[in-house]
Amino acid sequence: MAEQLTTREENYSQWYNDLVINAGLAENSSVRGCMVIKPYGYTLWENMQHVLDRMFKRTGHVNAYFPLLIPKSYLSREAHHVEGFAKECAVVTHYRLKADPETHGVVVDPEAKLEEELIVRPTSETIIWSTYKNWIHSYRDLPLLINQWANVMRWEMRTRLFLRTAEFLWQEGHTAHQTREEALEETEKMINVYAEFAEKYMAMPVIRGRKTETERFAGAEDTYCIEALMQDGKALQAGTSHFLGQNFAKAFDVQFLNKENKLEYVWATSWGVSTRLIGGLIMTHSDNNGLVLPPKIAPLQVVIIPIYRNDEQLAQVSEVAERIKGALLERDITVKFDNREEYRSGWKFHEYELQGVPVRITVGARDLEQGKVELFRRDTLEKWLVDTDSAVDETVALMDKIQQNMFVKAKAFRDASIHRVDTWEEFQEQIEKGGFLYCHWDGTAETEEKIKELTKATIRCIPFDNPQEEGRCVYSGRPSHQRVLFARAY
Amino acid sequence: MAEQLTTREENYSQWYNDLVINAGLAENSSVRGCMVIKPYGYTLWENMQHVLDRMFKRTGHVNAYFPLLIPKSYLSREAHHVEGFAKECAVVTHYRLKADPETHGVVVDPEAKLEEELIVRPTSETIIWSTYKNWIHSYRDLPLLINQWANVMRWEMRTRLFLRTAEFLWQEGHTAHQTREEALEETEKMINVYAEFAEKYMAMPVIRGRKTETERFAGAEDTYCIEALMQDGKALQAGTSHFLGQNFAKAFDVQFLNKENKLEYVWATSWGVSTRLIGGLIMTHSDNNGLVLPPKIAPLQVVIIPIYRNDEQLAQVSEVAERIKGALLERDITVKFDNREEYRSGWKFHEYELQGVPVRITVGARDLEQGKVELFRRDTLEKWLVDTDSAVDETVALMDKIQQNMFVKAKAFRDASIHRVDTWEEFQEQIEKGGFLYCHWDGTAETEEKIKELTKATIRCIPFDNPQEEGRCVYSGRPSHQRVLFARAY
Repeated sequence: MAEQLTTREENYSQWYNDLVINAGLAENSSVRGCMVIKPYGYTLWENMQHVLDRMFKRTGHVNAYFPLLIPKSYLSREAHHVEGFAKECAVVTHYRLKADPETHGVVVDPEAKLEEELIVRPTSETIIWSTYKNWIHSYRDLPLLINQWANVMRWEMRTRLFLRTAEFLWQEGHTAHQTREEALEETEKMINVYAEFAEKYMAMPVIRGRKTETERFAGAEDTYCIEALMQDGKALQAGTSHFLGQNFAKAFDVQFLNKENKLEYVWATSWGVSTRLIGGLIMTHSDNNGLVLPPKIAPLQVVIIPIYRNDEQLAQVSEVAERIKGALLERDITVKFDNREEYRSGWKFHEYELQGVPVRITVGARDLEQGKVELFRRDTLEKWLVDTDSAVDETVALMDKIQQNMFVKAKAFRDASIHRVDTWEEFQEQIEKGGFLYCHWDGTAETEEKIKELTKATIRCIPFDNPQEEGRCVYSGRPSHQRVLFARAY
Repeated sequence: MAEQLTTREENYSQWYNDLVINAGLAENSSVRGCMVIKPYGYTLWENMQHVLDRMFKRTGHVNAYFPLLIPKSYLSREAHHVEGFAKECAVVTHYRLKADPETHGVVVDPEAKLEEELIVRPTSETIIWSTYKNWIHSYRDLPLLINQWANVMRWEMRTRLFLRTAEFLWQEGHTAHQTREEALEETEKMINVYAEFAEKYMAMPVIRGRKTETERFAGAEDTYCIEALMQDGKALQAGTSHFLGQNFAKAFDVQFLNKENKLEYVWATSWGVSTRLIGGLIMTHSDNNGLVLPPKIAPLQVVIIPIYRNDEQLAQVSEVAERIKGALLERDITVKFDNREEYRSGWKFHEYELQGVPVRITVGARDLEQGKVELFRRDTLEKWLVDTDSAVDETVALMDKIQQNMFVKAKAFRDASIHRVDTWEEFQEQIEKGGFLYCHWDGTAETEEKIKELTKATIRCIPFDNPQEEGRCVYSGRPSHQRVLFARAY
């Protein structure tokens, strides 16, 4: 129930957690750091998957599936990769349990110890490139444009539902190319796919850019990202696309005969988005009444609620409600007529507001006398009467309006939260208030590290098409050629 | 290439393996027992998933996601379950690696030992019922009709691509009900969904029935199954649906307040099919030329191949091919126009035969002069000319014919392979030839075990609506009331 929500003003992170739990999206499981994604949350993820999967396929990609477990030694093949990923991960050491006569439970069978430990994949570059070695021989085998939908695991110490969990669901694209240029083009293409998905479907404005060397993916030569801004002024990395150069090809010895019949190492990219996006979606749009979901990916787009006093009224109301429901279904809109008698209409209003259903249609006996039903839009909380006959058309049009309005509103907030900052004092002051700080930086990892240490702010990205401009580093005062975006981040 | 296939007659199991590899469905990975599902095989799985998922949703189910890892102690909660599943499984004992200065690789950090080991899920009853405990309080929370698409792991000693792998993909439904009757109804409903899917989409005839106590799912009170027959005369369990009684509710203390306000244990079912189905599909239909795939789930339904001598002919041929392709796409048919110049048409014919593409349309310059193109159906290997203008309609009609013919053919083979056997001598003789042996059995686990020991045959199922008939057990000679189906099985 909406009443149980902590408000954003009271405690933003508690508000977030309450919302995820109370709207029935997910909950913590009894396994440390692993969440259960509940049906309402999973349907949201399925809707996101469908759109993304279509976008991947339209850009020429196919899906495949690679093993969950990775031999430990694979992780050490690429020198940077191992530093990034071989730390906190789940390690499989045995393959059998046996009965324990003492406890009547089971214990690990010490005789069933693996010769080489296996790691639950934190990401799949190593297992995939060890496989690509057998698939790629000549330029005719390239490009290889493969995506995988999978679960992955990183043993995070501090976890938060959707935002940072030990196990999460994601997709990871792994492509192989003949040339550096083609791989770079793919890296850029996919960050653009992510940006389009975030903005057009999630109504979440994002800034596209590249990461600094410090923030790059372990094993990448360049990492492109989309960065979103949450309502509390913190940034969220919403998707990344990596140009891996020939690093993994060299680590796994993947060479191909080029058109000149010479052996060359293959060029690679990888890119991914995860269930983390759901966290970003929630924190971009939701309010103190609950979730606000964009119509294009909402699990339930329209709910119809009846109001009546007696069986005769219920019959009239139901007839209209069912007619509207049928017409909406024909337009491929997900709609529910909630005629459960055990819940009052007031309770239902609250419940669907909490769940962020974009449009509510209330069919009430009294309004029907005037040939009207009530529309309610979740994003602005406005409601008004419309002619029963035009309810379907108005609902369809309203969904588009809501989708657009949510993006415009989020973008206005985001744009107003980008601050050009030129002095260190200003920086320290502004970072406490949140938002992106657009400032000059001297380009060194030392300064980046120092700023992070002092303020918890990191460089989120160097935006694409960033204007070149002479200036002085906001921290060190050394010369700089461009501004970059700092923020505290999730 | 088709030439590399071992024939079924030479070596059936080698034929199967060659086919999986050469048609590009899957391959073994470098991780013992775990396969890589290649794009062509994965697309097949996606097509199967889409149909099944729609069938699940139409029968009122929703999807959710539960943790990959299960605390070791959960497995011991249900006494029978632990015996079945706590044996060969992947055990996570540590959560961190650290750099090894000696080898420059990584070693398991002994300090990062888990207090309680975690098991990679072999099936999810235990983690799901530990979760349902918090979701179910009153009859209003029931029924709970949830499905999960996931990877699972069972440390099999002898593995075969798709048929038996350490890691496999599947769906597992887990439902909770107020009454025994309702749970039994669900168990039956889902085995019927599986049977419908197998027969209508995979064109694979199945026998529905129940398992004997010996062959039951560990923790179930009753297991329903669908059993198919492979071309080598061995049976394959293609799907199971379990009535779990109150076993898991009691093990995890899941009670609900019924309408009379009394606490009762919840009734449960679980049901699943896996990537194993792909193995069954292959062995039901394929031949010595390669895969034969039913049009309804084929990754590629139609391939168009051009034949020409010069650029002028290529232009004419391409125009017709593109027109046909466009018209087929409009009818939602998956079609590829393979105009690659680096491969000869003969090579392409073999390749798509190997891949089991149901219909091939050859657009040749010479045929075009008579206004004709050639159709080829993969199931019967027949080809004939049709008017260019009717090619699309004929192709669409042909796909239905192929789908039906594949089922009819497989069913005729299956029906001819069910043998009524009344003596032990006959049994021993027939079991070597394969097929289902429909015989009397005295109903004891001892006899079942003895027959298995002597012949490797198991009771595949007691068919639903099995006629009651007095007789004598084929092995013990003791009285029996019905016949059951024995077979050697995958």
